[in-house]
Amino acid sequence: MRKIILGFGMTIDKYIARRDHSIDYLVMDKDAEKIMAKFWATIDTTIMGRKTATVTAKMQKDVEMPEIGGVRNYVFSRRWKAGPRKGFTVVNESPAAFLKKLRKQPGKHIFLMGGGELGRSFLQADLVDELYLGILPILLGEGRPAFPAGFPQRDFKLTDCKQYSSGVALTYQRVVKK
Amino acid sequence: MRKIILGFGMTIDKYIARRDHSIDYLVMDKDAEKIMAKFWATIDTTIMGRKTATVTAKMQKDVEMPEIGGVRNYVFSRRWKAGPRKGFTVVNESPAAFLKKLRKQPGKHIFLMGGGELGRSFLQADLVDELYLGILPILLGEGRPAFPAGFPQRDFKLTDCKQYSSGVALTYQRVVKK
Repeated sequence: MRKIILGFGMTIDKYIARRDHSIDYLVMDKDAEKIMAKFWATIDTTIMGRKTATVTAKMQKDVEMPEIGGVRNYVFSRRWKAGPRKGFTVVNESPAAFLKKLRKQPGKHIFLMGGGELGRSFLQADLVDELYLGILPILLGEGRPAFPAGFPQRDFKLTDCKQYSSGVALTYQRVVKK
Repeated sequence: MRKIILGFGMTIDKYIARRDHSIDYLVMDKDAEKIMAKFWATIDTTIMGRKTATVTAKMQKDVEMPEIGGVRNYVFSRRWKAGPRKGFTVVNESPAAFLKKLRKQPGKHIFLMGGGELGRSFLQADLVDELYLGILPILLGEGRPAFPAGFPQRDFKLTDCKQYSSGVALTYQRVVKK
């Protein structure tokens, strides 16, 4: 099955960015790069929100989207016009409707990048199969919440835990308690 | 040196309790008990806020405080009258003033239990030397924040990471970047 993996780096106090959206504290060392390279090998589709897309594009020195071979990028936005753009496709359907179609197509896993409001929409609709979280060894004290409140309880099982020089990467699988 | 260790169990989305303060999702299995027993062996003093003290007392079936041999319990409260009670001492000084005296006395480490508002006061005054966090494999979607916003950035270093059946325990040491 193609899994929907919600993944991002966050601080110990669960922020995905400073209040001004900057993520200057996010240092990718060799260790983290290796871990991420392995992860990317399992992915062929990304989904992100408009804000994450804008920040990601800036990090890539104004190339519109990260250029990762063979990966399709979808950006959810109610503001932007739906349809293909350079490097990505804008979606303005509901997450459930969109994923129903996407999951019918064969492929690798689907990486829901960035947390925040789009992550919450997916959690509300219970569409997240896996969490893949990097925890950076810092307390920010304030910032953009990784998991904004407002979705029902979701239970997971910790399936992997990797310590590396700048933090820890945790993998969780969704479990449905009956 | 006697370290101040801020420690608690929290959900993946960084809550220390449900909105009604309940922590029914916190299951202590044999694994977690073993880890906690080792941790308690390094501690001879606890500090907690009034709310945590009340919840802890309830968990102990209305004994006022956990009965752990040789451990001194201090409860910070602006409401309660300062001074000794059955099983604990009420403190209404500032964290900095209180710790200055406490650190002069020889002893084991000091366990600041519970996060929340008292944790924030200690982080504001930069009095936390170590974080000891258990992460439970659950997203609550709403609840009591483990790290309420409103303190300056604090950098840490991950020094230990233990996976156990019901979650992961992370240890961080405070680092001051110059």
